[in-house]
Amino acid sequence: MPGDVVTFGEIMLRLTPPGFQRILQTPVLELRFGGGEANVAVSLAMLGRPAAFVTRLPKNDVAQRCINDLRAIGVDTRHVLRGGDRMGIYFLEAGASQRPSTVLYDRAHSAIAGITPDMVDWKKVFAGAKWFHFTGITPALGDSAAETCKLAAKTAREMGLTVSADLNYRKKLWSREKAGKVMAELMPFVDICIANEEDAESVFGIEGAEVTSGKIEHARYVDVARQLTERFGFKAVAITLRESISASENGWSGLYYAGGKPHFSRRYRIQIVDRVGGGDSFAAGLIFALMRGDDAQKAIEFAVAASCLKHSIVGDFNYTALNEVETLAAGDASGRVQR
Amino acid sequence: MPGDVVTFGEIMLRLTPPGFQRILQTPVLELRFGGGEANVAVSLAMLGRPAAFVTRLPKNDVAQRCINDLRAIGVDTRHVLRGGDRMGIYFLEAGASQRPSTVLYDRAHSAIAGITPDMVDWKKVFAGAKWFHFTGITPALGDSAAETCKLAAKTAREMGLTVSADLNYRKKLWSREKAGKVMAELMPFVDICIANEEDAESVFGIEGAEVTSGKIEHARYVDVARQLTERFGFKAVAITLRESISASENGWSGLYYAGGKPHFSRRYRIQIVDRVGGGDSFAAGLIFALMRGDDAQKAIEFAVAASCLKHSIVGDFNYTALNEVETLAAGDASGRVQR
Amino acid sequence: MPGDVVTFGEIMLRLTPPGFQRILQTPVLELRFGGGEANVAVSLAMLGRPAAFVTRLPKNDVAQRCINDLRAIGVDTRHVLRGGDRMGIYFLEAGASQRPSTVLYDRAHSAIAGITPDMVDWKKVFAGAKWFHFTGITPALGDSAAETCKLAAKTAREMGLTVSADLNYRKKLWSREKAGKVMAELMPFVDICIANEEDAESVFGIEGAEVTSGKIEHARYVDVARQLTERFGFKAVAITLRESISASENGWSGLYYAGGKPHFSRRYRIQIVDRVGGGDSFAAGLIFALMRGDDAQKAIEFAVAASCLKHSIVGDFNYTALNEVETLAAGDASGRVQR
Amino acid sequence: MPGDVVTFGEIMLRLTPPGFQRILQTPVLELRFGGGEANVAVSLAMLGRPAAFVTRLPKNDVAQRCINDLRAIGVDTRHVLRGGDRMGIYFLEAGASQRPSTVLYDRAHSAIAGITPDMVDWKKVFAGAKWFHFTGITPALGDSAAETCKLAAKTAREMGLTVSADLNYRKKLWSREKAGKVMAELMPFVDICIANEEDAESVFGIEGAEVTSGKIEHARYVDVARQLTERFGFKAVAITLRESISASENGWSGLYYAGGKPHFSRRYRIQIVDRVGGGDSFAAGLIFALMRGDDAQKAIEFAVAASCLKHSIVGDFNYTALNEVETLAAGDASGRVQR
Amino acid sequence: MPGDVVTFGEIMLRLTPPGFQRILQTPVLELRFGGGEANVAVSLAMLGRPAAFVTRLPKNDVAQRCINDLRAIGVDTRHVLRGGDRMGIYFLEAGASQRPSTVLYDRAHSAIAGITPDMVDWKKVFAGAKWFHFTGITPALGDSAAETCKLAAKTAREMGLTVSADLNYRKKLWSREKAGKVMAELMPFVDICIANEEDAESVFGIEGAEVTSGKIEHARYVDVARQLTERFGFKAVAITLRESISASENGWSGLYYAGGKPHFSRRYRIQIVDRVGGGDSFAAGLIFALMRGDDAQKAIEFAVAASCLKHSIVGDFNYTALNEVETLAAGDASGRVQR
Amino acid sequence: MPGDVVTFGEIMLRLTPPGFQRILQTPVLELRFGGGEANVAVSLAMLGRPAAFVTRLPKNDVAQRCINDLRAIGVDTRHVLRGGDRMGIYFLEAGASQRPSTVLYDRAHSAIAGITPDMVDWKKVFAGAKWFHFTGITPALGDSAAETCKLAAKTAREMGLTVSADLNYRKKLWSREKAGKVMAELMPFVDICIANEEDAESVFGIEGAEVTSGKIEHARYVDVARQLTERFGFKAVAITLRESISASENGWSGLYYAGGKPHFSRRYRIQIVDRVGGGDSFAAGLIFALMRGDDAQKAIEFAVAASCLKHSIVGDFNYTALNEVETLAAGDASGRVQR
Repeated sequence: MPGDVVTFGEIMLRLTPPGFQRILQTPVLELRFGGGEANVAVSLAMLGRPAAFVTRLPKNDVAQRCINDLRAIGVDTRHVLRGGDRMGIYFLEAGASQRPSTVLYDRAHSAIAGITPDMVDWKKVFAGAKWFHFTGITPALGDSAAETCKLAAKTAREMGLTVSADLNYRKKLWSREKAGKVMAELMPFVDICIANEEDAESVFGIEGAEVTSGKIEHARYVDVARQLTERFGFKAVAITLRESISASENGWSGLYYAGGKPHFSRRYRIQIVDRVGGGDSFAAGLIFALMRGDDAQKAIEFAVAASCLKHSIVGDFNYTALNEVETLAAGDASGRVQR
Repeated sequence: MPGDVVTFGEIMLRLTPPGFQRILQTPVLELRFGGGEANVAVSLAMLGRPAAFVTRLPKNDVAQRCINDLRAIGVDTRHVLRGGDRMGIYFLEAGASQRPSTVLYDRAHSAIAGITPDMVDWKKVFAGAKWFHFTGITPALGDSAAETCKLAAKTAREMGLTVSADLNYRKKLWSREKAGKVMAELMPFVDICIANEEDAESVFGIEGAEVTSGKIEHARYVDVARQLTERFGFKAVAITLRESISASENGWSGLYYAGGKPHFSRRYRIQIVDRVGGGDSFAAGLIFALMRGDDAQKAIEFAVAASCLKHSIVGDFNYTALNEVETLAAGDASGRVQR
Repeated sequence: MPGDVVTFGEIMLRLTPPGFQRILQTPVLELRFGGGEANVAVSLAMLGRPAAFVTRLPKNDVAQRCINDLRAIGVDTRHVLRGGDRMGIYFLEAGASQRPSTVLYDRAHSAIAGITPDMVDWKKVFAGAKWFHFTGITPALGDSAAETCKLAAKTAREMGLTVSADLNYRKKLWSREKAGKVMAELMPFVDICIANEEDAESVFGIEGAEVTSGKIEHARYVDVARQLTERFGFKAVAITLRESISASENGWSGLYYAGGKPHFSRRYRIQIVDRVGGGDSFAAGLIFALMRGDDAQKAIEFAVAASCLKHSIVGDFNYTALNEVETLAAGDASGRVQR
Repeated sequence: MPGDVVTFGEIMLRLTPPGFQRILQTPVLELRFGGGEANVAVSLAMLGRPAAFVTRLPKNDVAQRCINDLRAIGVDTRHVLRGGDRMGIYFLEAGASQRPSTVLYDRAHSAIAGITPDMVDWKKVFAGAKWFHFTGITPALGDSAAETCKLAAKTAREMGLTVSADLNYRKKLWSREKAGKVMAELMPFVDICIANEEDAESVFGIEGAEVTSGKIEHARYVDVARQLTERFGFKAVAITLRESISASENGWSGLYYAGGKPHFSRRYRIQIVDRVGGGDSFAAGLIFALMRGDDAQKAIEFAVAASCLKHSIVGDFNYTALNEVETLAAGDASGRVQR
Repeated sequence: MPGDVVTFGEIMLRLTPPGFQRILQTPVLELRFGGGEANVAVSLAMLGRPAAFVTRLPKNDVAQRCINDLRAIGVDTRHVLRGGDRMGIYFLEAGASQRPSTVLYDRAHSAIAGITPDMVDWKKVFAGAKWFHFTGITPALGDSAAETCKLAAKTAREMGLTVSADLNYRKKLWSREKAGKVMAELMPFVDICIANEEDAESVFGIEGAEVTSGKIEHARYVDVARQLTERFGFKAVAITLRESISASENGWSGLYYAGGKPHFSRRYRIQIVDRVGGGDSFAAGLIFALMRGDDAQKAIEFAVAASCLKHSIVGDFNYTALNEVETLAAGDASGRVQR
Repeated sequence: MPGDVVTFGEIMLRLTPPGFQRILQTPVLELRFGGGEANVAVSLAMLGRPAAFVTRLPKNDVAQRCINDLRAIGVDTRHVLRGGDRMGIYFLEAGASQRPSTVLYDRAHSAIAGITPDMVDWKKVFAGAKWFHFTGITPALGDSAAETCKLAAKTAREMGLTVSADLNYRKKLWSREKAGKVMAELMPFVDICIANEEDAESVFGIEGAEVTSGKIEHARYVDVARQLTERFGFKAVAITLRESISASENGWSGLYYAGGKPHFSRRYRIQIVDRVGGGDSFAAGLIFALMRGDDAQKAIEFAVAASCLKHSIVGDFNYTALNEVETLAAGDASGRVQR
């Protein structure tokens, strides 16, 4: 069915050694798919909100499998373009304890990197939709992808959709300078800006808290949100606060800043199964909560609960149902068996 | 060989996605079997105490596999009835961190639900046995199962066996009202009552401690044990105290109340591998310790150590040997490599 | 390529049930290889230091697979002798929480146990090498293995190599008395002695800290190192300090004692994936650091960081690269995703 | 998207031991889904023909997974009813050589068996569709399912859809007498009747060739088709001719009988990977070919080629693309690597 | 329950790479158990005939797992001795096409090789039993094992049991000369001699047909059976006739020679899943058929059908039920799906 | 150790769904590596002939794993260049029966495609070597790769090495015209030309037998070999003759044409496990046999036997030992268990 929410970006083949094995020792790779904007669409579909994902994928069976996996969850893939030579791949080694997870990208020359503004009829794509979401990865894929993203955001704004953007800075894709310049051109079309604790500084030079220490200082985050709001005129800014205790254990909470007021969620101490996609499930949770009219505090609690649960799920996709998020957001974090 | 202990109840096919996968994403299901009373028989057999399990299973290869798995561990299955159309199934998703494990039952219309009092010759079953154990699940399967269970308990009592019952309330099987009524009729035949922190309230309306908070208040548990003892005249009451910190981490201890005196075990902080069957391994540990003559404190320590170890074992069955339980009960919880 | 470091000892086929399964329930066994001295050679090769491993293995495909696995990592296996009837096997059950890992040895009658001093031309083996390492397991394999080890150590010393020995006491292989006597004859050729918190007492009767309590008392370890140094004239003594909180969680740090001065590393709290080979990766890290000229404090930090990471890797072998150890040794233990 | 073809029936959870293992020995079961009419919809979607599947499934995650797997392939599941307590399960052991595959059904009390004629708005379901397909399994599920099926066929006929039915006799679901009676009431709404070599006799007492001998006698099949046509006035009859050489090897061909003329396909000698769903993929291939206007000979060649390829695919679903079927139907059965 | 049939010999841990992988490439080994005499006991238990297996196994969890796997199938293991240091192991690579399966033995120093005649109270073991079976592997394990086997056979004969022996020559265990000498001393106690096409020549120098050509000459086999009968006075001789077309395909039939008359079974062309244990399942089928009173022709048909099915089962054990064998023996080799 | 034989080309990450699964349905991909020239080096190392492989690979862990896998088998990888951005990938679906295996390439922009003639010091690489081998895939990777290959062949010829080339035409890499032109420039440096039944026509327009029919006409192959010899002055031409009966079954034989005389090998009927790399194992077998001085007939028998066995091995690499090839070449194709 057509999506209330449209997301646009790259989705990659994700190849992971089972358990905590390294690439140097594994006999097999688990096959899954993931990418920031696709992950958001998946989360929304799981929660019951119609969502469409726009990307460009080649005509081969790996790409078809990707589309099938999205369709399975109910994501509308009818606007996926088919063309180009390959889809991006990333190899993920799951870390544990003091050993970080590692990501090895093989994403150059992907079909989506070759997208051009003329390829998508955004008016058709956005017909009937209410929300458009993208992340900083999409414009980082290249100039024509950035142009296409800009056209999408501009069209969405013109058609009255709410536009959200997750800064999502990836240092292997572009420099801070380039990111700052390109993203600044996109921000005028954005209503709600989402970031993690490092993005604001990396992209716009707005200083955030020190992150490797695992310490969280609330005041500094509020200040970052305030600065972002002032510079770009966002309706709201949402920030995820990750405390990296180890690869196995994280603190996790969030800040929603709107109308000049900060709203912090409760904090979860998480035993990590798979943290990739954590930020995306936060964005999706926030979009979901705001679309159904939750107030600021309820929305940030919902978003953080949704993304908290994501950390217990294998893969980029947040296979979590609405009632599960609501139970956790309502305060039951005991993990007792449901029978 | 014939069992010193006889248990009676349902055993189900247990189907579990590997790792922390959800049913929505798993390509395979691990095949195992489990059920409260069967789990107790298995634990006892592993500890070296002859145990027999009575149930009713259809004549097909899934049921035969179940019998084979029980025989492998040394459980006496000669009294298992064959008949009916299907055996119950339960799908288990292992939770992690804030995401609880979930159990999806497909157990209606099982062979054991169709059991009737005339099908079992309890005098023959109990010949030579010293202990009979059942749980609140068996009478919850239906009126004729409850009747059969009552006949069993009555016969056991008459033949001089010690009778233990684990309240094991399952809200999907029956209401609190029904449970309270039926169980009250069974209690007169019971010597030792076993319960977790919620059962007493659910079944008999005896209030226990609040559980989602993860706090344990010793005094309240003693009071629950006292009330149970007074109402039904049990020789002893044993209660497991689970602190649900998260799906990955629990506090675990136990109370043995006999002769008006409470005996609390030491408390373990457990990193959970699989907590299903934890209560059953406690019951088995307690039965084992009491049968060999342990005093109250030693018995509760043994029962809690046995069930603590269960949490580190995959599956319902507690594949733990006697010396392993004794080492832990003796105080070595360091987890150092045994070589 | 020829090794800067030569290690000598037994390597075994390591068979492990996947996940936390027990031998009583697993359908498959993961096939890997491991042994104290081989693990050290592997770690060094992974770090970029040429290393050769000397052992004796039969002429069959299991042994060939073992050699292939070592060659894959770049270990020089050209001095491996082929002969004898079998290679040792060990079955490893991974523990969790309060359940310890268990090791079941089937190593008697191995090819290496049948080695005799005349079989190896140590002068040829050591040509061009700078360091020789063995552990207390090698002489424990039998008198002729002990003789061969002694000849190796003596030749190494004569040829100017640095010699290190890890006491590595294995109670299933020999008595404390026998170990003390044989090891005392080897120590005169040793420059650097490595031990864990129990070895010094088991082998030489030098009392160390109590270990099952999980408490670490720094002063006692310094005293142990001092006594060892005084008795045998070592240039340095290194001790690993393991706090066994549970099978899932350990504290981990190290002491390097040289020139009468103790140097303690920082302490890591580790979520354990596989702790077998932890001590070997410490020895390798220490050798690596000392060979490249690190000072005492830097060397112990490097060794402890290398072995800390080993605990997050499946198998005996430490699949960790130099830059990963250096990042951790430099202080980043946050486990944040590397992309 | 809405389906050109609508199919209606039961889909079950299919649980299979990997490889050639038996239920008595397997540690895991592969999770897939399958059922005659669903398999037809899947095949059509894979070939590029929009297809919708109508059934009734409970509200739980196993049923949701089933829907997701259908959606992944592009089957329209919007008309799937949610309700009832369970979905059917079947356990499949893959046979080999002289050992037949075995199917163990646990399908009683399924949601679809509880369907009633008032639950489905067939006019809405069939809006825009051109073809309706069902098999003899659907009416065998019970009287109300048969009534619902009859209403569907009647409505389809009235709305001008072509109706096809696969006799698909299942002796464990109903007797020959009952099948003959119920199916005879449905046949007046059927345009194209599909059957295997045994169905016509089992359901309608029309004698076919002897099958256990593996011999095929063309004349007898033509006679069966002729009799079926005469009795029920079908536009066409299609029969699959399976020669069961062993569980590993079959001969496979088909007959399409229309306008009084028989059209036999070429015959394939098949090395079997998984033969379950072979007949369904034949029905789908036939429907696909006829819908696009293939002549009789071309249609039977296409249907047999499509189902020939199914035998090389694991699972009930025929993951075969249009070009693959066309290459085989065009005569290339060499199995040469496609690169 | 006590066994009607008693078998005596070695059972080994069988470790197999999955699929057709070689030891040089596999990441895991499938864990199973197998051995000639144990396989016979398992087959009989599967067919419903009480069977006991006598061996000697060490006290460790690998051996306990072996006992559990036997108990699961219903084999009486109460007479298994516990002692010694290790159990034998064999590594099996499954062959395919022109590549033969390979067996790598690591069976020296096993507990059973250390058995001595005084360890078993055969009178107790044989109480109530009717048949004793051993193979040429048992006496090949060493002189004391041969002595023990001889005592067993002698006692069985004295107690009126029927004694069968499968010559089962293993060239890696002993020379032809030694085998001929030792086996000749055992034959006087044997009623029924079982052999494959090579054994009679290897052990007793009685020439059989050439085997690598895959040709079978009936007359020569009859002559071999006649010679065996004349030399040792057997009541009957049974010979399996294997035509080794390739590792993937075999011809399979059998000869039963009794009362001077040969009875050949029908011949099966087998697609091989796992041929190890094929001969043992033949022996078991023959024993089963003779014990229930089948005539010569029916017995050889049953034995060959049972062992034909074994070739389709993974592992040494023949997980085949009585009705399956009877269906095949009755002539249905079509491999059609059983539903 | 340095290689007697040097091969040069691309090696790719090979990703394969387990069993006969398709990309559309598999949860995991088996990780292996393969490429024509690497496969030849691997085969030679397995047979005991020192072999070196030259390629260019990026500096990442996937490429390092590839190097490790080659080192494991003993291939000399010291001349592998590290640089570029990615290594090629190919996805392989294993076919069965009438369904062909499919290869999906993702190899553009690989490090080896970016190689330039100045990157390799061929004189150093060839020092001490006797044979150089490449295939038509290497020059097909691009003009600079073709230039590098030409320089290698020219240098090898000048340094007195025997040069062999496998035509190995890949239509997805270049057109027939381009291939014909480039290959013609390389042929003057080639001593021995290897081809399959299609290559000669595809590359040089020399007509061979029709292949999809599965028929082999000996005379036509001799004529192709004669024409190739005459046009390019080869010392010998070797052709593999594959009869594609189905994806599960092939006929396989070979022709060695030298001195104007054809030598045909015996023909094998193969049950296929994995046919990728079949041609490479033939080339390696031929090189091995010729280097040790086998005469023409013996050489072609050895080459065909080696490659026949490859078809039973999973993966590109031929894990077959010298004695296994010799046993088959000597005539034992019975596939009998080796114990």
